[in-house]
Amino acid sequence: MKQNAIVAGVGMTHFGKHLDIGLKAIGAEAVQAAVKDAGISLDDIQAAYVGNAAAGLVTGQECIRGQVILRSIGLGRIPVVNVENACASGSTAFHQATAMVTAGAYDVVLCLGAEKLYSEDRKKSFSAFSGAVDVELMQIIMENLQQSAAKGGASAGASGAGEKRSMFMDIYAMAARSHMERYGTTAAQYAMVSAKNSRHGSMNPRAQFREELTVEQVLASPMIAEPLTRPMCSPIGDGAAAVILVSERKARELGITKPVRVVSTILRSGWDHGLDEDGCGDVCAREAYEDAGVGPSGISVIELHDASAPGEIFAYEYLGLCPKGEGGKLVQDGVTRLGGRQPVNTSGGLLRKGHPIGATGAAQIVELTEQLQGRSGARQVAGARVALAQNGGGNIGTDVAAMCISVLRI
Amino acid sequence: MKQNAIVAGVGMTHFGKHLDIGLKAIGAEAVQAAVKDAGISLDDIQAAYVGNAAAGLVTGQECIRGQVILRSIGLGRIPVVNVENACASGSTAFHQATAMVTAGAYDVVLCLGAEKLYSEDRKKSFSAFSGAVDVELMQIIMENLQQSAAKGGASAGASGAGEKRSMFMDIYAMAARSHMERYGTTAAQYAMVSAKNSRHGSMNPRAQFREELTVEQVLASPMIAEPLTRPMCSPIGDGAAAVILVSERKARELGITKPVRVVSTILRSGWDHGLDEDGCGDVCAREAYEDAGVGPSGISVIELHDASAPGEIFAYEYLGLCPKGEGGKLVQDGVTRLGGRQPVNTSGGLLRKGHPIGATGAAQIVELTEQLQGRSGARQVAGARVALAQNGGGNIGTDVAAMCISVLRI
Repeated sequence: MKQNAIVAGVGMTHFGKHLDIGLKAIGAEAVQAAVKDAGISLDDIQAAYVGNAAAGLVTGQECIRGQVILRSIGLGRIPVVNVENACASGSTAFHQATAMVTAGAYDVVLCLGAEKLYSEDRKKSFSAFSGAVDVELMQIIMENLQQSAAKGGASAGASGAGEKRSMFMDIYAMAARSHMERYGTTAAQYAMVSAKNSRHGSMNPRAQFREELTVEQVLASPMIAEPLTRPMCSPIGDGAAAVILVSERKARELGITKPVRVVSTILRSGWDHGLDEDGCGDVCAREAYEDAGVGPSGISVIELHDASAPGEIFAYEYLGLCPKGEGGKLVQDGVTRLGGRQPVNTSGGLLRKGHPIGATGAAQIVELTEQLQGRSGARQVAGARVALAQNGGGNIGTDVAAMCISVLRI
Repeated sequence: MKQNAIVAGVGMTHFGKHLDIGLKAIGAEAVQAAVKDAGISLDDIQAAYVGNAAAGLVTGQECIRGQVILRSIGLGRIPVVNVENACASGSTAFHQATAMVTAGAYDVVLCLGAEKLYSEDRKKSFSAFSGAVDVELMQIIMENLQQSAAKGGASAGASGAGEKRSMFMDIYAMAARSHMERYGTTAAQYAMVSAKNSRHGSMNPRAQFREELTVEQVLASPMIAEPLTRPMCSPIGDGAAAVILVSERKARELGITKPVRVVSTILRSGWDHGLDEDGCGDVCAREAYEDAGVGPSGISVIELHDASAPGEIFAYEYLGLCPKGEGGKLVQDGVTRLGGRQPVNTSGGLLRKGHPIGATGAAQIVELTEQLQGRSGARQVAGARVALAQNGGGNIGTDVAAMCISVLRI
């Protein structure tokens, strides 16, 4: 008998630069906050799904990351499954934890996303991203580019492993330019995403950046990869977020007064598609809406994967918030800002709340749960009833390697 | 309605040193063999769980390992979850894949374990293991040991990251010496495990080592960590193994004539326990037997985690094949050799078939499925009806970080 998993409690750390705190301490803080929020004890947790993408590279903790974090607060014995799907590791942990509750395998499951990206060695932080593509293939491409450059005297163009920015910003920049040419989207519209999310982030005490930026300030910032200026790119950061999922039986036992139900959670991998074929985002969104029995217009509040400002505009379109090509107009019309018809990234999003890779997908659920329960303070979306989280990770062929879309309802 | 997941097909590569083949090619070979064995097409697969522990370190493929492997054979679109639990990554993938079929979430799920450990840089291969403990804690311990050594002039003793052997052999050596002192176990009995498994491995075309060794040869081999000689330690290696799990409905549709049912699969994490308290192995075994409705004496054939020869003897005891302290006698009496009452590691085990970390747990299921279906050739255990796989990974506190025990029945 299928049932909905229920979010019993959420918790997260401040996102930011925490050079003095290790992965264990960050993860522990989020779990303890979620356990307290759920009104359960650690002993109630029957299984844990832990998402992390870069600890092997950044801290040397290549294996058993979840066990190491959880033992530090005395949580053991249970099944611990470490999951990874690049920037979608947190939502993958959420997806698996939810699936196990839905299936009736457990009554209480912990989803934890935790990441330490800052390192004394800055190169390590950025090279984390270069492992989120087909590494063998990328080496061949880079060798070919270098050979062409040597022959023709031209620059290789793409950034490689160990560079001082994520190679994903080059991929986003290329897609952003293509969207501008194809649909007339403007750099100012990309800047509006960053400005909007900076306003939202300024109201979020857990956000990495609290400064509010104007569109002009965003456009005048240093260029990272044409047309992306620095505030159009998500930062690296440290942080953790945890979600406690329970069965309906357990929710009644706990006497949860405002149960948030996970009405759908869809995980998909990308593939190679032509320019006019639907990408992973379109397919994943379609399935998530169908499973949830709700369409795009029925969603009150959204947290989506704005790893770059153009990424938010692309997501508007594949989530069906507007027709293809009209994402720029949607932000310009104020539809997606707090107070607009369909607020997006009220937390500040990846751009301003921050993007500790493996934590991001779980942190989206934290924000949305609080929104649905009416406890978001200054950022509260009035009367929010249905929420959607979208989290993508890695690059495979010409699409994302993993995408997870979940719909929550109160 | 709970159901048993059924093994519809299995496949694996030769285990060994494959410097010229990448992770993608190795993984692809195992998947294609399993798909062929199951009589399905790639399109039938609805989800994939992929276990790998060291690709980030060895090949730089820190993220989306499964997607990269599966795209190389045209498998995409489906949910791909990358899981990791150190040396138990393969069984964790199997556990999750089985759970999803049991829960009715999917009809056809792929479990893949794949690992490339050999590298031109040999240090990389061994340092993979140093990420399978609490890295923060180990740094503190190593610093303290070095400070003591500097003060007292003594050697630090333990091997650190990047050494030319796995630090786990030091841990096993310590436990082996303790078992000898406590129960009178002898080095010759440890050598009997290696000799037995070398005989089994000599009959397995997929084994890394085919040479048959005598007890004397094992004892006379170079010492790695007292009392462990080289053939008492599992080697590093490359390889992959895949298992296709299907629902009962799908098994009927495929017309599987010899269905192997997964009657229990238990995943647990270790914790800190006193000397006389049951460890993770005891608890995990008890639950697996209870779930399967069978006791130790009802098991016909066993694949267990002989990362070291003493490890096999410890496992005899916590699996209940003999009373505590009598594991040495069990191998000496010939009970666990081919032709004995309860053959263990007919594949050659980790010691001789090889131990490409993330592949090991899946490869155990390959061997046991073939045994139950009567297709193990010279290694066939006559009349095998019930099989048990035990796979452990990592070290946490004073126990294993993850252990998975599964029982299969024909």
